[in-house]
Amino acid sequence: MHHARFRDPAGSVRTGQWNDGSVEFGGETFDADAVDLLAPCEPSKIVCVGLNYEKHAEESGMEIPDRPLLFLKGPNAVAAPGSTVTLPAGKERVDYEAELGVVVGDQCRNVSRDHAMDVVSGFTCVNDVSNRDDQEVEQNWIRGKAFDNSAPLGPVVSTPDEVPDDARISLRVNGEVKQDSSRADFIFSVPELIEEITTYMTLEPGDVILTGTPEGVGPLSDGDHVAVDIEGIPTLEHGVRTVD
Amino acid sequence: MHHARFRDPAGSVRTGQWNDGSVEFGGETFDADAVDLLAPCEPSKIVCVGLNYEKHAEESGMEIPDRPLLFLKGPNAVAAPGSTVTLPAGKERVDYEAELGVVVGDQCRNVSRDHAMDVVSGFTCVNDVSNRDDQEVEQNWIRGKAFDNSAPLGPVVSTPDEVPDDARISLRVNGEVKQDSSRADFIFSVPELIEEITTYMTLEPGDVILTGTPEGVGPLSDGDHVAVDIEGIPTLEHGVRTVD
Repeated sequence: MHHARFRDPAGSVRTGQWNDGSVEFGGETFDADAVDLLAPCEPSKIVCVGLNYEKHAEESGMEIPDRPLLFLKGPNAVAAPGSTVTLPAGKERVDYEAELGVVVGDQCRNVSRDHAMDVVSGFTCVNDVSNRDDQEVEQNWIRGKAFDNSAPLGPVVSTPDEVPDDARISLRVNGEVKQDSSRADFIFSVPELIEEITTYMTLEPGDVILTGTPEGVGPLSDGDHVAVDIEGIPTLEHGVRTVD
Repeated sequence: MHHARFRDPAGSVRTGQWNDGSVEFGGETFDADAVDLLAPCEPSKIVCVGLNYEKHAEESGMEIPDRPLLFLKGPNAVAAPGSTVTLPAGKERVDYEAELGVVVGDQCRNVSRDHAMDVVSGFTCVNDVSNRDDQEVEQNWIRGKAFDNSAPLGPVVSTPDEVPDDARISLRVNGEVKQDSSRADFIFSVPELIEEITTYMTLEPGDVILTGTPEGVGPLSDGDHVAVDIEGIPTLEHGVRTVD
C-alpha cells in the first residue's frame, strides 16, 4: 500500500491512498494531476547514514566504517516530489545521491534490531543532494548536506511489504542511468541502523532515516531532471536549477 | 522583557511575561512554582557553532576557524529548565558547555549582517552537553552532540535590549564557577553567524542558534547541579543523572 500527502482542490492537506496516478481520501478519488503532491511525511529531523555501500566508500576514498557514519538534516531540507530544487549558489560541484528513506511510524528510543521494523511505517525515495565544495572542507556536513532543498523525498510512503530486501535502487539524470545498486548491498541493515540511532536519540513519527547512497554519484546542473527509482515505490522525480 | 513558556494549572501550554519568579498570562499571575516551566521555544532545528572563542579553540587543540564551524541538533535535544538531564549511557566523559542561545523570531533566509538583529526575538541560556567519547571519533558530531537532552535551554527568552554586547557568560557546577567569559570575546558576532547560516538554510520562528562555548569546559557526573548565568537573562539550572 502507498500513501501520499497532498493539498486537495480546496487547499486542505490530506493523506490518502495512492493508486497508480490517483489518490483517494474520504471516499473521493482525485487524479494526481489535480492535486499538489507534498512530501509524504513531515520529519522533525532526518538522520542520514554515510558510506553504507562498500563501492561508494571506495569511490569516495574513505574507509568502510565499523559503525554507521551518521549526520543530520533539518526539516528545511525537505523538498516535495515533482518540485524544482535550487542548488546552493556559487558552488563548483553539487551531486545527486539516490537513497532509500525509512519513514518512522512511532515515537521510539532504545529499539533493538529484532523489533526495529515495528517502528517503521514504510519506505520512500530520497535524493541526498550534496554540496561537495563545502562538504570536503568542513568538520560537520552542514553547508555540504543540510541546506534548503537538500532532501527531495517522495512521492509516497510505501508499506514495508512493498519493498523487497534486495530492492533495486537506481537514479537517472535526464533519462540516463547513473546509479544502479541494491538494498542487499547495504553494509548496515535498516534494523541495525534503527538500533544504533535510537541508542542516542528518540525518533518521532514522520522522521526519516536516509540509508546511504550506492556508487555512481555525480554532478547536477541547471535544468537537469532527476528520477530516483526504488523497486516497490513509485518513482521520485524533481527538477534542478541554479541561481547566481 | 522576558518570556516564559509554561503549562498552567489546567495543563494548557501558554507563553507569558516573566517577572522575577512569577509569570503573567491573560491578566492572571502565576507563581513560577505553581506551573511547569517548559523550554521557552520550540526549535525545528538548533544550529550550533563550535570554536567561537579563541581560548576554547586553544584548550581543544583546534585551529581558529576562518568561518564558523557549524553543527546541528534536532528538536530531540531540547531539555526544559529545571529538568534532570540523562547523560548517554556508558561514556567516560560528557562535558558541560555554557552558551548564549539566539532565538529566531521570523522565518528568514539570506539575511545580511546589517539586518540580522531584525529576525532575533531574544536570547536564552543553553548548556551544549557534549559526549566527548564519541565526538572525538566521529566525522559529524551526532552521537557526540545531538543525543536526547543535549540542549537544556531557558528558562526564558529575554529581548535583545536586556543582554549587553559584553554580557558575562558563566557556568557553575554544584556552585563552583567553571566557565567565566564574555560575549565580547566571540570570534564571530551574532549578526555574522546569522548571515552565514541563512546563506544555506531558512531559519524558522523558535529556531535556536548556539553561539559556542568559552574556555573551561569539563566533565559532568551523576547528581551534579548545573547553573548557566548570562548577564540580562535569568539563570538556567538543571540536574544531571547517569543510567547503566
